[in-house]
Amino acid sequence: METPSSRSDKEKRSGDRIYKEACDVIAGGVSRNTVFRRPHPYYAASASGCYVTDIEGVSRIDFANNMASLIHGHAHPEINKAVTEQLQRGTAYTMATTPEIAFAQLLNKRIPSFEKIRFVNSGTEAVMTLIKAARAYTGREKIAKAEGAYHGSYDYAEVSQTSNPSNWGDPDQPNSVPVANATPQSVLDNVVVYPYNDLERTLAILDNHAGDIACVLVDPVPHRVGLFPGTQKFIAGLYDWTRENGALLAFDEVVTLRVNYGGAQADYPDKPDLTATGKIIGGGFPVGAVAGRSDVMRVLDPRESRLLFPHSGTFSANPVTMTAGYAAMSLFDEKAVERINDLAGMAVGQINEAVSVADVPVSVTGAGSMFRIHLKESSPESYREAYQPAEETALIKELLDYLYMQEQIMMINTCTCMLSTAITEDEIVRLSEAMLNGFRHIKPGLDKLHDKQAAPKHA
Amino acid sequence: METPSSRSDKEKRSGDRIYKEACDVIAGGVSRNTVFRRPHPYYAASASGCYVTDIEGVSRIDFANNMASLIHGHAHPEINKAVTEQLQRGTAYTMATTPEIAFAQLLNKRIPSFEKIRFVNSGTEAVMTLIKAARAYTGREKIAKAEGAYHGSYDYAEVSQTSNPSNWGDPDQPNSVPVANATPQSVLDNVVVYPYNDLERTLAILDNHAGDIACVLVDPVPHRVGLFPGTQKFIAGLYDWTRENGALLAFDEVVTLRVNYGGAQADYPDKPDLTATGKIIGGGFPVGAVAGRSDVMRVLDPRESRLLFPHSGTFSANPVTMTAGYAAMSLFDEKAVERINDLAGMAVGQINEAVSVADVPVSVTGAGSMFRIHLKESSPESYREAYQPAEETALIKELLDYLYMQEQIMMINTCTCMLSTAITEDEIVRLSEAMLNGFRHIKPGLDKLHDKQAAPKHA
Repeated sequence: METPSSRSDKEKRSGDRIYKEACDVIAGGVSRNTVFRRPHPYYAASASGCYVTDIEGVSRIDFANNMASLIHGHAHPEINKAVTEQLQRGTAYTMATTPEIAFAQLLNKRIPSFEKIRFVNSGTEAVMTLIKAARAYTGREKIAKAEGAYHGSYDYAEVSQTSNPSNWGDPDQPNSVPVANATPQSVLDNVVVYPYNDLERTLAILDNHAGDIACVLVDPVPHRVGLFPGTQKFIAGLYDWTRENGALLAFDEVVTLRVNYGGAQADYPDKPDLTATGKIIGGGFPVGAVAGRSDVMRVLDPRESRLLFPHSGTFSANPVTMTAGYAAMSLFDEKAVERINDLAGMAVGQINEAVSVADVPVSVTGAGSMFRIHLKESSPESYREAYQPAEETALIKELLDYLYMQEQIMMINTCTCMLSTAITEDEIVRLSEAMLNGFRHIKPGLDKLHDKQAAPKHA
Repeated sequence: METPSSRSDKEKRSGDRIYKEACDVIAGGVSRNTVFRRPHPYYAASASGCYVTDIEGVSRIDFANNMASLIHGHAHPEINKAVTEQLQRGTAYTMATTPEIAFAQLLNKRIPSFEKIRFVNSGTEAVMTLIKAARAYTGREKIAKAEGAYHGSYDYAEVSQTSNPSNWGDPDQPNSVPVANATPQSVLDNVVVYPYNDLERTLAILDNHAGDIACVLVDPVPHRVGLFPGTQKFIAGLYDWTRENGALLAFDEVVTLRVNYGGAQADYPDKPDLTATGKIIGGGFPVGAVAGRSDVMRVLDPRESRLLFPHSGTFSANPVTMTAGYAAMSLFDEKAVERINDLAGMAVGQINEAVSVADVPVSVTGAGSMFRIHLKESSPESYREAYQPAEETALIKELLDYLYMQEQIMMINTCTCMLSTAITEDEIVRLSEAMLNGFRHIKPGLDKLHDKQAAPKHA
């Protein structure tokens, strides 16, 4: 039988031609806007470890790892072995399976706030399930979320994800800005938007809705906000506020579970009531999960006389994802976490040196095995500070294109790296050298941008 | 490395003990309420073709196929071969791939209304994406859906999914009934609930909201409503109404795509503007898709100067699902569709004979390769007719438990069969014999129920 891949291998066509064909059948030619770029997306043919090979046969170092989801890089032999064995036993049944239980035990033992867990199929589903659980538990309709934070595509979760200076409004009272056209006004009204890491303003905003808020949703190292950790003061303040006001503290650790062995939440003394996670826990397969306090998670328990939140899902906890996830998270042990965090630290150090050598106004933020490069003199400390005007976004794209085409390096489109354990010091050194070249490449544009920003007062 | 499955193979523990362990770590001990049952769920160890083997080593014929999602049964060698090859090349990249395009071409060629498609990770995500696309295109907030129809767990889609006599209200104006506690009132207000196949009432209800409705969502053979097809008159009436009122006709074919080669929609002359699908198109892996008119799907196109509906997803269109789906749908060709539809017809004929022989008040509804057994003298024609009071549900459970334990036959918990191509006439004959025994087993209970219902006037 001809498979779609054998077909594509046979006919080496250019990205232009492939994309033209894609546009005939797929809206915008891509199923994920993440991979969209002009004039056409890049097409992957295969990958192994920390290298991805495109359809032209060019290999590149992968610092993106499918948007941070592949903690061991590509085609890890132990994960593949476990999955291949499971394939022989089937991929899904209308019955429960034991891999789900073993994996739940592993994760709950690892992360103290995970008393009970439920698996779903994506980060979007995880956050949706979390929000519905928080509503069901508290009997309240509203949620609070940070301006600029990405939490998937559930309407309530995506409010103000892409706020910009034309619509974000007063920092004391950020607007609820829709992402999709015709988002119901009532969705916007039910989402309270707060400025990340600005505790004073946040508490004042929350106080205006005290009694109505089911949960305060917070990503402890929000990528799109600027990829800097929530301060101890900020997280403690949110924790205290939720205790005082009958709300839940809900962490989105879909991306950040990689930050420590026990997730980014291990950095804070106070534990979230609920956590949504996903990405790395699927071992490369579609996954999401929501976990937290037993008494809160009880809203999902079908044994209760009044089931407050009935929930199911055809592929939830399917044994392929559970098996791959179990293998991946077992391999991502304390030593492995420490090792890639150290590699990230080494990378940030070397990139900061490259910044000095190239003499460019660039800063780096991050936590654990993640870091993000900003074309800003000093590290941004808020979403509005991290916000990139169009000229800056254009320069980021120029830098990323240069790295991809000239240096064979692939990063996330915000100029972010999310390391896998397949990375070694060699690739880090390659990255730093490439970044130095990249900074030199965009330096003329950066200088121009800097001059332009310096001339009129910078907003 | 020890995998969760090898561990469970080693220790054969009873379902009771396993479930107790599960309850310690998972809310309700299951990630999907579908598989929940008292005193504990059944646990699958492995499966092949149309047989599933439980952890005790007992094999059963599988007429459930993971809630209709496995069109070729379990561990199909060609699908496994294609997936195993893809595993060597990786499971996901931060880049586009050609399998996604090949699969989109295959589906769009097969189903005429699929002009453009987008892939997501589940049926829930597919329906959510469809509703958001309909809103974005029409600029309207409301949707209409059928009382009792299941469309996944997006709040708007699940309204009135489990309406019952205590809350469903006037048939001329069915109530919007929440599924989850503290579903925002505004969600309920934005969902217009209509009675399936009752065109006159439905049009009157829709007319009350004309101008506000983005789409009329309709499952052409809604499982939970009663698993009977939408009548020609009903679908034509909805089509005409949507034309006249600037709304979209949206089909949920997550389950029903299997009904004909071109989906259940092939049975109707008028085509939906948008379709959500999933289940069988994933070849056993998590999947969803939304497809439809090019001009509507354009709301998702990032090349548009104003992108009305930005949409992404870490695992959307991942090459494992795309490869498995391509293999599965290629194998599910016109001949294969016809063959299992004929087998379903044979099964329904034989079960109706068993109903006569056992002399029980039972009826069978269905379409294509799906059929559902009702403990009702005549086939229900509406959700309210198909609704099962508690005593009837208890008898259905008794029948299903009998079939499972005594006859080694597994069905969906509504007493529904969704066939796979792995089924042969032998298994159909086994099913009919088992059903005859099952009907005799529950006959005393059925007679009692019937007498009880006959005594007071049956509502």
